[in-house]
Amino acid sequence: MTKITKLLVANRGEIALRVLRSAREMGIQTVAIYSEADRNALHVRYADEAVCVGPPASAQSYLRGDKILEVCRQLGVDAIHPGYGFLSENAEFARMVTEAGLIFVGPSPEAMNIMGDKLSAKQAVKAYNIPLVPGTDEAISDVEEAKRIASEVGFPILIKASAGGGGKGMRIVNNATEFEEQMQLAVSEATSAFGDGSVFIEKFVTGPRHIEIQVLGDEHGNIVHLFERECSIQRRHQKVIEEAPSSVLTPELRAAMGKCAVDVARACDYTGAGTVEFLLDEHKNFYFLEMNTRLQVEHPVTEQITGLDLVKEQIKVAQGEPLSFSQDDLTITGHALELRVYAEDPQNNFLPDIGTLTTYVRPQGPGVRVDDGFEQGMEIPIYYDPMIAKLVTFGKDREEAIARMLRAIAEYQITGIETTLAFGRYVLEHPAFVSGNFDTNFIRDHFPADALKPTQPDDTIAKVAAVLGAMLMTDKKPAVVTSSDASAVTTGSAWKRNRLGVR
Amino acid sequence: MTKITKLLVANRGEIALRVLRSAREMGIQTVAIYSEADRNALHVRYADEAVCVGPPASAQSYLRGDKILEVCRQLGVDAIHPGYGFLSENAEFARMVTEAGLIFVGPSPEAMNIMGDKLSAKQAVKAYNIPLVPGTDEAISDVEEAKRIASEVGFPILIKASAGGGGKGMRIVNNATEFEEQMQLAVSEATSAFGDGSVFIEKFVTGPRHIEIQVLGDEHGNIVHLFERECSIQRRHQKVIEEAPSSVLTPELRAAMGKCAVDVARACDYTGAGTVEFLLDEHKNFYFLEMNTRLQVEHPVTEQITGLDLVKEQIKVAQGEPLSFSQDDLTITGHALELRVYAEDPQNNFLPDIGTLTTYVRPQGPGVRVDDGFEQGMEIPIYYDPMIAKLVTFGKDREEAIARMLRAIAEYQITGIETTLAFGRYVLEHPAFVSGNFDTNFIRDHFPADALKPTQPDDTIAKVAAVLGAMLMTDKKPAVVTSSDASAVTTGSAWKRNRLGVR
Repeated sequence: MTKITKLLVANRGEIALRVLRSAREMGIQTVAIYSEADRNALHVRYADEAVCVGPPASAQSYLRGDKILEVCRQLGVDAIHPGYGFLSENAEFARMVTEAGLIFVGPSPEAMNIMGDKLSAKQAVKAYNIPLVPGTDEAISDVEEAKRIASEVGFPILIKASAGGGGKGMRIVNNATEFEEQMQLAVSEATSAFGDGSVFIEKFVTGPRHIEIQVLGDEHGNIVHLFERECSIQRRHQKVIEEAPSSVLTPELRAAMGKCAVDVARACDYTGAGTVEFLLDEHKNFYFLEMNTRLQVEHPVTEQITGLDLVKEQIKVAQGEPLSFSQDDLTITGHALELRVYAEDPQNNFLPDIGTLTTYVRPQGPGVRVDDGFEQGMEIPIYYDPMIAKLVTFGKDREEAIARMLRAIAEYQITGIETTLAFGRYVLEHPAFVSGNFDTNFIRDHFPADALKPTQPDDTIAKVAAVLGAMLMTDKKPAVVTSSDASAVTTGSAWKRNRLGVR
Repeated sequence: MTKITKLLVANRGEIALRVLRSAREMGIQTVAIYSEADRNALHVRYADEAVCVGPPASAQSYLRGDKILEVCRQLGVDAIHPGYGFLSENAEFARMVTEAGLIFVGPSPEAMNIMGDKLSAKQAVKAYNIPLVPGTDEAISDVEEAKRIASEVGFPILIKASAGGGGKGMRIVNNATEFEEQMQLAVSEATSAFGDGSVFIEKFVTGPRHIEIQVLGDEHGNIVHLFERECSIQRRHQKVIEEAPSSVLTPELRAAMGKCAVDVARACDYTGAGTVEFLLDEHKNFYFLEMNTRLQVEHPVTEQITGLDLVKEQIKVAQGEPLSFSQDDLTITGHALELRVYAEDPQNNFLPDIGTLTTYVRPQGPGVRVDDGFEQGMEIPIYYDPMIAKLVTFGKDREEAIARMLRAIAEYQITGIETTLAFGRYVLEHPAFVSGNFDTNFIRDHFPADALKPTQPDDTIAKVAAVLGAMLMTDKKPAVVTSSDASAVTTGSAWKRNRLGVR
C-alpha cells in the first residue's frame, strides 16, 4: 500500500473540481493544470497548486502528457487522476506515468489496450461466455456467405461497412428476400466511400436501451458491480439524461448483467472504476458492447444510490487498498437522475452557445446536487466540451427524483447564454419518459423540431401592473401580489424577479 | 382524504423556502407571507403568490394569525404550514385554522396543549411507563421531606426554584451532609428573587447527552420513529451541530428509545412530524424531557439518513393519507451532520453581526446540502433569528460526513458579515468531537475564550510575489504558482482568489 500524498488532476472543468473535492476530503494535497483559456477556472482556484501547461488547444495543453509529467517532477506529485476524456483512456500515457514512478489512478495500460479495441475486447471475453450482438466476427464480401450468416442471426439485420463510420455503407435489412439487393448496395457504397467493399453482418437490435454497469476492482482480485445506469436518452449519440436504477431491470436481470460485467472486468484483470456497456433489446436480451476504462460523466447517479464516493474508491484502489465491501454489502437506496446542462441553443439546432454567464445561480435544497466548473461572471470557453453542469437529483423513488429535477430546473438561474435546461424539462415531462417505457430512439420518436417554441415574453410585469391599484398595505387588508400563472413553470421560473410594486 | 391544492407557509427564511420546495415538487400551489423587512427575501420570490402582512416586528406580521387567515380567505388557500418558531406551537392558532375550515399542517391543538406544558405532558405519558428524570412531582418547601426524596433519588441532585428561571435558586448537591445547608440557601434565594420559596428536587444527570427521536404519526393510528438525532453540541442552550445517527446508541438502545418516543406520541394521539427529546446519562439511562410538536430546525439530518422528505410526509398526513411505510421498512443509511451557520461574531462573544452578504457562494459537490434563505447582495435583517444557513453534509459513515463538512466550510464564501463557520470548524476538528465522546458541556469544557484567534492577514500575496520571477510560461518549463500553505485550511480557503501573476 502506497499512500498518495499529492495528486495532480490532469483535466479541467467539473470533473477536475469533482476529483479535487474528494482528494481534499481525504487530506491529499492537490495540483491542477490548466490551459491559457482556463486561467480563471474554478479548478485552478480550488487546487492547492496550479500550473499552466500551454495554449487553449487541448493538443497543446491538456493532452501534453510530457508537460504534465514535468509538472509532477517539479512539484513532487506522486499520483495522477486523469478524469474522463483527454488522456484518461490513453494507455501510452498511463504507461509513461507508471514508468516515471508515479501512480496512475485508473486501470493498467494492458487493460486499457485490451478494452480500447473492439476486436481484442471480444477476444478477451470469449472465455467468459459474454453475450455479444450476434453477427460476423470478421469482415466479409461474399454475398452467399453473408446471406447464410444473416439467416442464422435472424432478421432484421444490419450490414455495416468494415471501414465505415457516420452511417455510410450501413443498411438495415428486414427479411431474406431483400437481402441480396441491400448487400450489393452496401458493398458498392462502401467501395466508393472507403475503397473497401467488405462488410460486417450484425443483428439489428430493435427497441434498444443503453444500459451500463459500473464495476470496481482492486489489485487483490476483488471485483464488484455497483448496479446499472440507464443511459438510453441520447441526442446524436450523446447522453442527455442518465438514471439509476433502470425502470426495466428486474432483480434477476440486474444480477445477471452485473455478473456479466464483473466477468468482462475479470477478463482484463481490471482495477479501479470502469463501466461495461450493454445493449438491452425489447425482449430483455442483453449484449456486451464495450468497456469504458475510466470514470464516466454520469458516475454521480451511481454514487447517489450506493452512498459511495467513486473518486475516493478509485484513489483507494490506486493506493493498493482492498475494497472495503463485498458484492453482498451493496444495495440500491432510492433513485437518482442526471441531466447534462449544455451551453447549446435548442432553438438553433443545438449549436454551442458561447458567452458569459451573466447570471448563474444553482438550485439548492433536499435531493439536489450540482457538479459544475463555473460561477457567475465566467465565460464558457469555445475550446472544450460545452457542458456547463451536471444537475443531479435523488429521492426515495423515480417519481420523486423526477419531481425534484423539474423543481431544480425551475430554480436554476442562467442568463447570458442559451442552455439545454428547457430541453431537459421537455424530456422529463414527456409521458414516454415518465412511464419508463422508452429506448435510444426517444429523441427521434418524441422530440419534433418545433417542440421548444421560442419562449413568450414574460407577461408577469403586465399582469402585476394591472393589479397595482389593489396594492395598498393596510392593517385590515394585506396587499396581495399574484404571479402571472402559478402552473406555468418555465426555466428559472421558480424565482419571480419581476414582482413589481411590492418592493 | 382531502387533497391540498394551495398551501400558505406562515413563516420566513430557510424553513419557508424549504417547505415551498417540497410543495412545488408535489404540484401544490404556494403562498408566502412576509413582513416589510422581508420584501426581497427568497421565499417571497419563490412562492407562486406572496402577501405582505405587516411591519418588521414579528408581533405585527409573522405572529398575526388573524391577518394570515384573512390572506387565506382572499387567495383560496386550503392549508397552512407553520414551519418552526412563530405560530408553529400555538394551539390557539391551530384551532383558528381548523375552525376556518382549513388544514393545519401539524398535530391537533389538543396534542399541542398536552405537550406544551411539562406537567400535563408528564401526566399524559404516565400510563406508558416513560422514564422521567427522578425527583419530586410537585414543588415542596419542607426540608426533611426534601431530604428524604433526595436520598431516594440518589445524589448528586438538583434543587430548582419552583418559580425559577435563568439558574436563579438552583443548587447542585453532591451528598446528604451538605443537603440541608444548600436547600436553605436555595429556598432563601428563591424567596428573595421570586417571592416563592418552594422548590423541586431532581436527579442531577452527569455527562448528559441531548438525544431526540423523530416521530411521525398519521390520522389512522400509525406512529413510527425515524431514529435519533444527536444534539449535544450546544452553546447557550442553542444547538450548534446536530447529527444522525448518534455515536453512542446501540441498536438495542435505539430501539428502546424509539419505542419510548412512539409511546409518548401515542399518549397524545400525535399526528404529523414531532420530536421527543431525551436526556441520556453517562450510564446510558435515558429520560424523557419534552416533546416538540413541530418540524425541527435539524430535521434535514433525519431526511438524509432515511431518504424521506419530512415536509412531504407532513403534508401527506395532513391530507389524511396513511403512512406509506411501517417501522420495519425504515433503516439508517449513512451518516449526516448539520452545522448551523449564524451571522454572529465569534471574536465578539457571538453577538449578532448584521449587514450585507457582499459575497455569498455556497459549497457544492457530493454529500453537501445547503438550506438557506439568502443570496449574494442581500441583507440579514436585525428583526429575526440570525441564522444564515443550515449546512448539511452526509456520507457513508461519520468520518466521511465530518470530512465533507470541513471541505464544505472551506468552500463556503461569505464576506460582509462575520459568521460562525470558523467556530463550527473548531468543533468539528476537536478530538473530543471526532471521538464521539462528548456531552452537552462540550463548549464549556473544550472551547476556551481564545480558541478562535483573529485570523492572520493572508500571506498568499506576499509568497506569490516572491516567486513571480520564476513565472515564465514556456514550452519547456511550465509556470508554477504555489499557494501559501496547502495544509492551512481557513474558512473559505478552498478558493484562492489571490493567486496573482497567473492571470
